[in-house]
Order: sequence, then C-alpha cells, then structure tokens
Amino acid sequence: MAKTEVATDTYLVGIGVSPGISIGEINLLSHSASIDEWPIAEDEIAAELERFQWALQQAREQLLEIKASVSRKKHLREHLYILDTHLLILEDEMLVQGTEKEIQGGLNSEGALKRTLRKLRQMFENIEDEYLRDRSSDVDAVGSRLMRILTGENERSIADIGHKALVVAHDLSPAETMQMDREKVLGFVTDKGGQTSHTAILARSLEIPAVVGLETITSLVHDGLPAIIDGSNGIVILKPSEETFKEYLKRKQSYEYLEKELHGFRDLPAITTDNVRVTLRGNLEMASEFPVSRKHGTEGVGLYRTEFLYLGHNETPSEEEQIEAYREILTEMQPESVTIRTLDCGGDKIVSQLNVHDEANPAMGLRGIRFSLSEGNLFRTQLRAILRASVHGKVRIMFPMISGVVELQRSKRILREVQLELTRDGHAFDPDIEIGIMIETPSAVLLADVLAEQVDFFSIGTNDLIQYCLAVDRGNEHVAYLYEPLHPAILKALQMVCRAANNAGIDVCLCGEMAGEPIYALVLLGLGLHELSMNPGSIPRVKRVIRRLAKSDGEVLLQDLQQLQTAKEVSSHLDRKMRELLPDIFDQSLI
Amino acid sequence: MAKTEVATDTYLVGIGVSPGISIGEINLLSHSASIDEWPIAEDEIAAELERFQWALQQAREQLLEIKASVSRKKHLREHLYILDTHLLILEDEMLVQGTEKEIQGGLNSEGALKRTLRKLRQMFENIEDEYLRDRSSDVDAVGSRLMRILTGENERSIADIGHKALVVAHDLSPAETMQMDREKVLGFVTDKGGQTSHTAILARSLEIPAVVGLETITSLVHDGLPAIIDGSNGIVILKPSEETFKEYLKRKQSYEYLEKELHGFRDLPAITTDNVRVTLRGNLEMASEFPVSRKHGTEGVGLYRTEFLYLGHNETPSEEEQIEAYREILTEMQPESVTIRTLDCGGDKIVSQLNVHDEANPAMGLRGIRFSLSEGNLFRTQLRAILRASVHGKVRIMFPMISGVVELQRSKRILREVQLELTRDGHAFDPDIEIGIMIETPSAVLLADVLAEQVDFFSIGTNDLIQYCLAVDRGNEHVAYLYEPLHPAILKALQMVCRAANNAGIDVCLCGEMAGEPIYALVLLGLGLHELSMNPGSIPRVKRVIRRLAKSDGEVLLQDLQQLQTAKEVSSHLDRKMRELLPDIFDQSLI
Repeated sequence: MAKTEVATDTYLVGIGVSPGISIGEINLLSHSASIDEWPIAEDEIAAELERFQWALQQAREQLLEIKASVSRKKHLREHLYILDTHLLILEDEMLVQGTEKEIQGGLNSEGALKRTLRKLRQMFENIEDEYLRDRSSDVDAVGSRLMRILTGENERSIADIGHKALVVAHDLSPAETMQMDREKVLGFVTDKGGQTSHTAILARSLEIPAVVGLETITSLVHDGLPAIIDGSNGIVILKPSEETFKEYLKRKQSYEYLEKELHGFRDLPAITTDNVRVTLRGNLEMASEFPVSRKHGTEGVGLYRTEFLYLGHNETPSEEEQIEAYREILTEMQPESVTIRTLDCGGDKIVSQLNVHDEANPAMGLRGIRFSLSEGNLFRTQLRAILRASVHGKVRIMFPMISGVVELQRSKRILREVQLELTRDGHAFDPDIEIGIMIETPSAVLLADVLAEQVDFFSIGTNDLIQYCLAVDRGNEHVAYLYEPLHPAILKALQMVCRAANNAGIDVCLCGEMAGEPIYALVLLGLGLHELSMNPGSIPRVKRVIRRLAKSDGEVLLQDLQQLQTAKEVSSHLDRKMRELLPDIFDQSLI
Repeated sequence: MAKTEVATDTYLVGIGVSPGISIGEINLLSHSASIDEWPIAEDEIAAELERFQWALQQAREQLLEIKASVSRKKHLREHLYILDTHLLILEDEMLVQGTEKEIQGGLNSEGALKRTLRKLRQMFENIEDEYLRDRSSDVDAVGSRLMRILTGENERSIADIGHKALVVAHDLSPAETMQMDREKVLGFVTDKGGQTSHTAILARSLEIPAVVGLETITSLVHDGLPAIIDGSNGIVILKPSEETFKEYLKRKQSYEYLEKELHGFRDLPAITTDNVRVTLRGNLEMASEFPVSRKHGTEGVGLYRTEFLYLGHNETPSEEEQIEAYREILTEMQPESVTIRTLDCGGDKIVSQLNVHDEANPAMGLRGIRFSLSEGNLFRTQLRAILRASVHGKVRIMFPMISGVVELQRSKRILREVQLELTRDGHAFDPDIEIGIMIETPSAVLLADVLAEQVDFFSIGTNDLIQYCLAVDRGNEHVAYLYEPLHPAILKALQMVCRAANNAGIDVCLCGEMAGEPIYALVLLGLGLHELSMNPGSIPRVKRVIRRLAKSDGEVLLQDLQQLQTAKEVSSHLDRKMRELLPDIFDQSLI
C-alpha cells in the first residue's frame, strides 16, 4: 500500500503508558496480512476442525517455549503469569467452541477465528471497568498468534531488531514486549492498547517510553522515518523539524536530569515547610511492581488491589495462594503497612475473563462489597487469607463500595466470625488489625460522620466518587468533559469526609488519581489530608512539591476556593496560586 | 397441552398496572401456535420476500381499520397515537430489512421474522430506562400481528367476549386493549408487560383492574376457572377458596367504598391539622391522562414530561407541534400552573425508538440537560415552543440532570437568547416565566445552596437521586434491595436541599415516586415540603393522610429519624409512628 508522504512535525496524540522521551528512527513491525474468509464444503469440515486443533497445539508449544526462555531473565520472571493467562485463554470455551461452531457452519479456520474474535471484542468493549476492558488485548494477542500459525506467517521477532530504534506495531503482545532488548528498543508505539494493558504495565517495568492507542500510526509510517516518542504526554511526532528536534532533546535532558534529581528525594520525608509530615504510599497490585515502587521511596501500600488474584484463572484463588501473595507484599514493605482492599469487581468478571457481565449500568450494579456479601464463601476465604498473612507484617483491611452502615456491619460481623474460626483452628493473626472503608459513593460522604465512628480509617477513592457525585461515566466520551476533580461539589464532598474523619480522630487517606497529580497537592494539604496513596511513579514528583508547600497556605487557598462556583474558576485559581508559589516547577512544565 | 390441576388458592404475583379488584371467571385468549422455522430453497426466496411484503401491507390495512373504528370512540381518541406508532414500526428498517435479510439467507418468513424479533427484544432488554424498555411491547405487538397474518391465524377478537370475564392472554396489544368492552372485561392479566407499557397506560385510563408480567399464567389456567385479580397489589388468585373469596369480596367493597370516599376529597384542600397548606400536583404526560387527573383533583402539573413528543416519531417535533401539545395541557390546567421539564432522555433514543444507545453506563451518560446542550437546535426549538405556549396559561420551565452551575448558566443563557429572538420576531410570551431545576444528581445536592440563588424553584427527583447517591441501579435485580428511599443518606440529602431552598426563599417540590406514597407524607411534611407532584391517581390517598397529620409532628419525627443509622430502623420507626397516628387507615391496609 502506497503511503502518503508524512508532513514535517506531524503530531499524533495517543495514550502515554510509560514515561520518558525517546528520539530515533522507526522500525515498523510488519502488519499482518488481511485474513481471508471462505466457505468450506461439508466434507472438509472434519479436516478443518483438525487444523484448528493443530493450531491450538502449536500456540501452546510456542507459549511454553517463550515461558521457558523468559524464566531465565530475572527482571521478567514476575511477569510469567501473563503467559499463563494466555495459555488459559487457549482453553477458553468461547474462543475454542465459538470458532469450532463457525467451522461447523462451513467456514475456514481463519474466517471462523476472525468472526469469533470480533464477537469477543464487542463483548469486551461493553465492559465499564478499564482494567478489565484492557484484558481484551490478551485475547487479541492469543488470537493473533493463532492466526499467524494458521496463515503460516512467521512470528515477528522483536528480539532480532538489529539497531537502536523506535518500534511501531499494530499491537504488541506481552510475549513480544518481554522479548524486547532494552538496549535496542528505545521506545514503542502501537495502534492499539490501553493504560492498563499488560503490555503497558510491562513497558513501565522495563522503563521503555511508550505511547499506545494511536489507531492508525502503522499506516502512516515507514522504516527509517525519524520520530520522537513522548511517553509522559502520550505524544508522537513524526519527521520532527530541527526546531522540534532541539526542543525535545532539551526536554529529554531535563526529563533525565529531573529523574535523577527526583531520585535524590527517595530517602527524604514528604514534609511541608510548616513541618507537617505527609505519608506517601503506593497503589500496588502485582509483585512485578515492587522494584519500581522501592526505587521511588514508597512508604507502604495505601491501596493493594486484589482483583488480579481472581482474574484470568479458572478457579477462585485458594486461601493458601492468597496468603502467599499477601505474605510477599507484606514482607517486601516491612516495616511499613499494607492496606489490602477486598475484591472490588463484579461477580461475572471473575473466574473466567470472558464471562462478561450483563448489567445495564454495571457501575451501579453488583460490585465491590455487594458482590463479596453475596458470595459468602469467597469473601470468608479472602478474609481468612488476609488475617493469616497478618503475622508477616502490618496489614489493614479495607472494604470497597460501602454505601451505608448495614454493609459495613455485615462485613465486620463476617470478619469477627472468621477471626473466631481462626482462633478455634489455632491459626495466628493480628488481633488488632485495623478495618477501614473506601469512601466512593455519595451516600458514604453524606454519612461520613456516622461511618467514621465505626472504622479505623477512611480511604477516599476519588475516581469513583467523582463519577457518582456528578453522575458521569468518564469512560463515555460524550460526557467525559463533565468529570472534574475540582468541581465545587467534589471539594465540598472531600471536606465533609475529612472533617468527619478528623472529628472522629481516625486516619483518612486519599487513593484516587488526584493523589498522584502534583497540582492538587496544596488543595489536599488544605483539606487536612496527611496520607496519600498513588502510583509509585508519581511519588517523587508529589514529594518534591509537598516539600516546598505549607499546609497553612493550603488552608487559606481552600477558603478562597469555597467561594467559587465552577470547576473552571477553581482550576484557574489553583493554577495561579501554584504558579506563584512554585514558578520554577511550572516553568519546566513539571507539574 | 394437558394442564396440571390448579390448586385451591394459587397465589401469583405480577405487576399491578391498574388498581382495583375483580372477581370472576377466566376467559383465556388462545395462545399463538408455536412458530415453525424451515429453510427455503434459493429459487423460493423471491416469492417469500413477496409474501412478507404482502403481510406488511395486510398489517397496515388492519391497523388503519382499527384506527378508523377507535376514532369513533371519544374516550379512546387520545390514544390514537399508539396506532400511529405501530404503523411506523411497520416501516422500521431493523424490523423490515432484518427480516428480509434472514429470508435472503434462506429462511421462511415466519422463521425470519421470529429471529429478527428476538434480536430486537435483546436490544430492548439492555435499555436502562423503564419507559423506553417497555416500548419493546409495541414492537412485539406489531410482530405478533405480522405473525398471525403469515400463519393465517385469525385475529383474536377481544371485542367478541360474550359474557363478563377476566381476560387472560400471553400479551395484549394496545389495539386489542382499545377494543375491550368495559362492561364485559372485568379485568385482565397477561404473561408479559411492564408498568409503563402502552397497554398498562390504557388499562388505567379505562379503569380496568390489570396485572401484567405473570410470565406463565396462560399455561396454568383454562376457560371458566374462577379467579381474583387484585390490580392494586399485583396479585392474581386462581381457584379461590370460599374464605379467600369472601375476604376479597370484602376488600373489593372497601376499595370501592374508599374510592367513593376519596372521590369526596376531590375539592377539599390538602391541609394539615396545624393549618399548613400542601399543594398536590400531577406528574403528567399524555393528553389521555387529563380526565383521570381532573377526577382526582390535581392542582396543576408539577412534572410535565415531554419525552413522548420525541419518541416513536421519525422526526423531532416541530415548534408548532410542541406549542399545540403545551397549549393543550396549559388550557386544561387553567388557572393552575404546569411545570414543563425539557427533554430528559439520551440522544440516541429519540427519532427512532429502535435506535438503541450504546453506552456502558447510560444512567451516567449523555442524557437530560447534557443532551439538550449538545443539540442546540433541538433545545432552542423546545424552549421557543414552551415560551410561545406561555401565553395560554401559567407555565414554568424545568431543566433535568443539572450537575453544577455551568450547565444551569449555559441553559439560562440559551433561554435568554431565545427570548430575545421571540421579541425580535414579535411573538408574545410570559416575560416572567419561572425557571427551575431538577435536583437529582448528588452534586446538585451538595451545591444546593449555590444553585438555589440562581433559580426560581427546585424539584427533587427522588427516583434518580436515590440511585446516584447509593450507586444503585434499581432496574438491576441483584442490587435493587439497596434502593431505599428511607436510607439515612437520602434523608440527609433531602434535608440539605430543603434547607437550601428555604434559606434562599425559593419553592421546592418533590416529584419522585416518594411523593405518591402516603407512608412518606409525614417525613415530607417534616422536611418542610409544601408541594408534592405525583401520579394523579395517588393524590386522593396522599391528601387523605395529609389532612390527618400535623407538620409539627413531622418535624419531631424527623429529628428522631436523624438519630438512626439504617434504612430499616428509619422505616420501622416511621411505620410505628404512622400506625400510632392513623390506626384506622393502617387497619384497612390503605396506606
């Protein structure tokens, strides 16, 4: 296909999934040939089914081979579970039987597989949860592998890239990403992908700048085209002018300089100029994130998500498996505490990833604590595991999606029962384990004073709280503009929660995305928040800003912000104030 | 099919869509024969397509015939638009082309139609809005008509029922319901249907007790079986024992006695024992509801929904069409006021009913004022029409789904522009027209004090407010138990709104379902609400209770309720209090 000439300084905007700037030439990984679909005769069906079975077997062998080779690389060992996920997908009913049914209907394997993948993709698109939606990329990766085997195409070998280059591909599977040579691959860019796809998570742990979700970049570029990848801002610039090139070279240098400078904050406390100590914790999930987390100076874990234990497996995790996972993170974080959030997703999403939930409004459906309370055994097993792991370090339990006192009381009752069981069975656990709840429904905000009397801590989940308060699904492009962390209603909600926690003398942490954005630090200080939990990568930047701010300034600011009526006014006022207080950081666009 | 013998006093629970009690024998309208699906040969396709076209033409003629006959019946004339809707469905692309495509794929017309209807039904099932979801019954009605024509089955003639009977049918189309003889049909019961289906609306306006959604009743009963229909409670009792029969005869008499007694309240004011005057308005939509509304003594309209003007038509309604609709209700309600709510639905739902919206969480999507602001012309046309109609009576404008000051200001700016346009064009309108907003998002509750300064009135939409505050979709059976109007968080939200309105000196009305339930009257009085808007049919019952209560008791009650932590505690306390104050009404189970 002839490509139109790319104009100088062509800016493309995607999703930055791994920060940093890379400058170099493009190495375009060839796009799969288009898949042909043709009817097959009645008497060809048996042979075609056999061919599909053969492809499944081939794919299995390839994955096992990659797994063997990856397990020799220490820094990737912790990602092996992704390959296990792919092996499980090869056995997924909807994929295998769906394709077989199409073949039986008289279609060749390639066409049958293509149709089945399309259906699965449509199902995934309707999932509200971003993390789960991004799991569709694992199905795609497995689908592409099968397709390559069926069409006889060779595996693209990203391991064989001969010189330093910016890799551009329609999509990269986690298996391909794992095989990347960090010396050769300066950065990568794909048409597909999302913030929380396995490929994105891998890119961050490999520290390779990456931008995904560019949709059509593979149809625009060719090998050797000069380009810039700005993974921090999700920008790709094709054929940069000399001016742009120089500017980005400067930015790359400041980025790397800042990275070093930020690294220097690692062992310094986050303390304001008026001597208020703020604890900066990490939002963590997989063991693979521990090294990065350590590097950034995480003070324990404010939000340990446990969904990954349940997803992509054919069975719910056993008590022992869970204890092992919890023990691992607790040991890692010693002597800091780890706040474990009990399972926070809808029921039909666990066990098999492909079993998509059919709720008209899943965000207002059976999820979080509601699901746990409806599945007593699953919930008890998780609580048993957390309690038993509590001998390995300091752990706190947190319940998600609490909308009132009844759910909290039911959860606490079950916890007490489990504690009695463990005592009876002679299992040790921390008897003083702290219990907290996520504040993410508007009703929890309205009842914060009552709830505060019944827990040891609050953790504010701003992402969901903002969505419910404003009745806005930020995943919906038509209304995403209404999702505003600085909406006056949100500030008021945060104030109500902080005041209630303060009056009751309990800890309150903020663990939504707001915590990780340095621009909000002064507002959060003003609200009286002394504990923030965020992506570990954001900690140095937030710490840098906090060490230059005074809590008292935050309090004055908050009083001013309360007089304002719109998010835009609040945002401008905050911007002005932060620029006045930290002009240098603003000048470097480092906020 | 042989039916198992029905046991004495078999209780079945469905959805009561039209109140009252009927006792009699069942007349079972024959169930459609099962539809056969068979493949057709290549050379039969053309003839089959022609047969389907013939069926469409037949259906059109049948509908036009019913239309002509119905338009001679005065009390049904206002429902003619339903038949127009059905005529439009006969031209719907998805129905017609969908079926044709299946025929072209080698299927007989019956099978092709059956498959297409199944697909359409699945689409409708995913709609969150109950009103829209119930529109699927119109598609079903048209589908059944086509199917009867194709299979050569005769139209069941409900008009020909020879003696007084309880009609039982798998489903009743609005056309069939319209042909009912009120002297012969004592009540009706169907397997299918929902609260807001056209058939349900018709039953209420014909004042025939009806229970729908019984799923399998047609497979349980036979002609002549004695039964009781309790349309008020959604209960059907088959083969009642003598005891049950006597009890229901008594209930029927008290119901009819109460109806008469309630009728006596029509011209009395809703005034508390401590002399607080409460205004009881109606939630209205179609002109067909006016007579019932008058009968119940509605004091103007607190919520005039305008969605029906946009649904089921191929084009958005013109300014003139809207003026006519608004003029009609304004004239009807003179000298009382009518609060017109601007369009409150998602965009893809209008124009064609079959065009289903594809949002992951439609309840948190592009709807209400968000949609109007995104469709400037449509919004301006509606505002022009409301303003121009304002010369015919007292009208107030209300914006739905306001989540903050910006949306309100944008709406008011557009309204001002439209007013200037009208002045320039020489159109008369009420220059002092009052502007209000629905309070239904949690953010509007949190900002109620700010919003109150910028509008003339609030109207609290409790249905949505409860859903958003608790993050619960009450249409979702797995979490519907969490939808609790007496949740402490909801009481607190209502208090915040009432207090803000009171401080600003503006009117506040409550127009959600809470308004129409007599049990809540004391709480609403305690909150300081002096204006309630509800289904007109609920007005007499609510008025009866209000005339026996004191606002001061409500205030004391509310203080007690504030000390309680769960919806259950609040509910028990309220029950106790109401039973203490109005023991006779409780004894009659009339609350």
